[in-house]
Amino acid sequence: MHDDIFTNLSDPSDLSDLSRLSLNQMTTKPWSVREAVEGCVCAGIPSIGLWRDKVAETGLQESARLVRDAGLKVSSLCRGGWFCAASARERQERLDDNRRAIEEAATLGTETLVLVCGPAADRDLPAARAYVEESISILLPYAQEHGVKLGIEPLHPMYVGDRSVIVSLGEANRLVQRLAHPGIGVIIDAYHVWWDPELEEQVAAAGGHILGFHVCDWLVPTPDMLNGRGMMGDGVIDLRRLRRLVETAGYSGPIEVEIFNQALWELPGMEVLHLMSERYKQCV
Amino acid sequence: MHDDIFTNLSDPSDLSDLSRLSLNQMTTKPWSVREAVEGCVCAGIPSIGLWRDKVAETGLQESARLVRDAGLKVSSLCRGGWFCAASARERQERLDDNRRAIEEAATLGTETLVLVCGPAADRDLPAARAYVEESISILLPYAQEHGVKLGIEPLHPMYVGDRSVIVSLGEANRLVQRLAHPGIGVIIDAYHVWWDPELEEQVAAAGGHILGFHVCDWLVPTPDMLNGRGMMGDGVIDLRRLRRLVETAGYSGPIEVEIFNQALWELPGMEVLHLMSERYKQCV
Repeated sequence: MHDDIFTNLSDPSDLSDLSRLSLNQMTTKPWSVREAVEGCVCAGIPSIGLWRDKVAETGLQESARLVRDAGLKVSSLCRGGWFCAASARERQERLDDNRRAIEEAATLGTETLVLVCGPAADRDLPAARAYVEESISILLPYAQEHGVKLGIEPLHPMYVGDRSVIVSLGEANRLVQRLAHPGIGVIIDAYHVWWDPELEEQVAAAGGHILGFHVCDWLVPTPDMLNGRGMMGDGVIDLRRLRRLVETAGYSGPIEVEIFNQALWELPGMEVLHLMSERYKQCV
Repeated sequence: MHDDIFTNLSDPSDLSDLSRLSLNQMTTKPWSVREAVEGCVCAGIPSIGLWRDKVAETGLQESARLVRDAGLKVSSLCRGGWFCAASARERQERLDDNRRAIEEAATLGTETLVLVCGPAADRDLPAARAYVEESISILLPYAQEHGVKLGIEPLHPMYVGDRSVIVSLGEANRLVQRLAHPGIGVIIDAYHVWWDPELEEQVAAAGGHILGFHVCDWLVPTPDMLNGRGMMGDGVIDLRRLRRLVETAGYSGPIEVEIFNQALWELPGMEVLHLMSERYKQCV
């Protein structure tokens, strides 16, 4: 499973082992849950981050059985959120869908449901942000009953128009503070937060409520705003610095590799897994 | 010059007149300085924001004469900055180039040189930000001697990898505070700051050192990360709210329309000027 059998797996600061590595399913988008699970086992990757659409294709119970039988940890389920909508009926439907996502997370055996919080239904960002807060506060008791925590993932500000009104770690931290509930936290994704001049202080401020850490890289130039993210080491993010900040803040959980990249999706999945494992050891 | 002859031109809160409108030359990129100046006169636009490459094509003295003879106000010159470089020699060359930009601004009769502050020469954003601060502090006395102020324009975070390490208004404001010099301020461009959850408080904090206000719109989807900006009203930015915030902070200067958009550049320039004047009245 590991390149170096002398590696101490229990030391989270050891950079040479894969014990904290998780495959976010988006990195091998063409793969089914079964293929991703088998790929992880084969490549010695101990955790997987699942996506709801993939889980639905395979079936919820079958997906849960596959990861359980393979001995994989499910680091998170992507994704809930998308609360804002133009009509009351739609907003209700979206809350209901989030309740189903919470149930699915519980069935899959993960503690973490990732929330993508947006976009606004109109041009009013402050109102949309207030509605996101209201929606999460409605869902928190239901999540707690199911043993699931909600992870607010601030997205990059370039997605504020079409994906998320929460676009900085500072804003996500303040939201967590206001909600003041043990079941809420943040997901720190390098791609979404690396630009932030407040990165150091906001990662520190997230200490105690970091529910996930995602990595990939920022390519220059960026080939596509959504599907142009890079393999670690191919871009300009100082990933090791960010990992150090996140660990200093107390996080020692899984590190998910989540890469939206069209070119990567055209490679054989096992090739992607080996490349990401190497780059994880070199760059993260 | 105005649609409504009863408009009170001296009232900055009056939304129906063009007295504060400025054409940033990038909006009519195919035009020379002469064409842009003639276009402004013809469309009743009283100010223009010039670009150094266009000024160089026409000649500095000739450009200065053209705007002066036309009675146009030069709202700003784009752009200085780009301080970071891998070698000491290159860094020196860039400082020298900024000194020339300051001289050009003075000759053109504008008080404002717009600074684009980046990108980093390597992966070290904190070091690049410190070097930007050092460079500006070196230039400030020279700018003051020439009667020119330096406007830090925070760019959208999606440009942190290739254009600017200053990517939020808060960071720009803190930089201005640390520099503590009457010749430094910020340029607020709607496209670059609209996503910010701290927009309201940071625009207020910029009060007293706002040197320019730029508008365009954010298109969903965005056709291109650099040249896919939208005409006001075609996107999702609440421009009127932002104008209100900027005016409440005390800014009553020119409002530059700066649109990087390939499709717009293919239209006849006068058509662009008429459209932007209409949209300015409707949406800004």
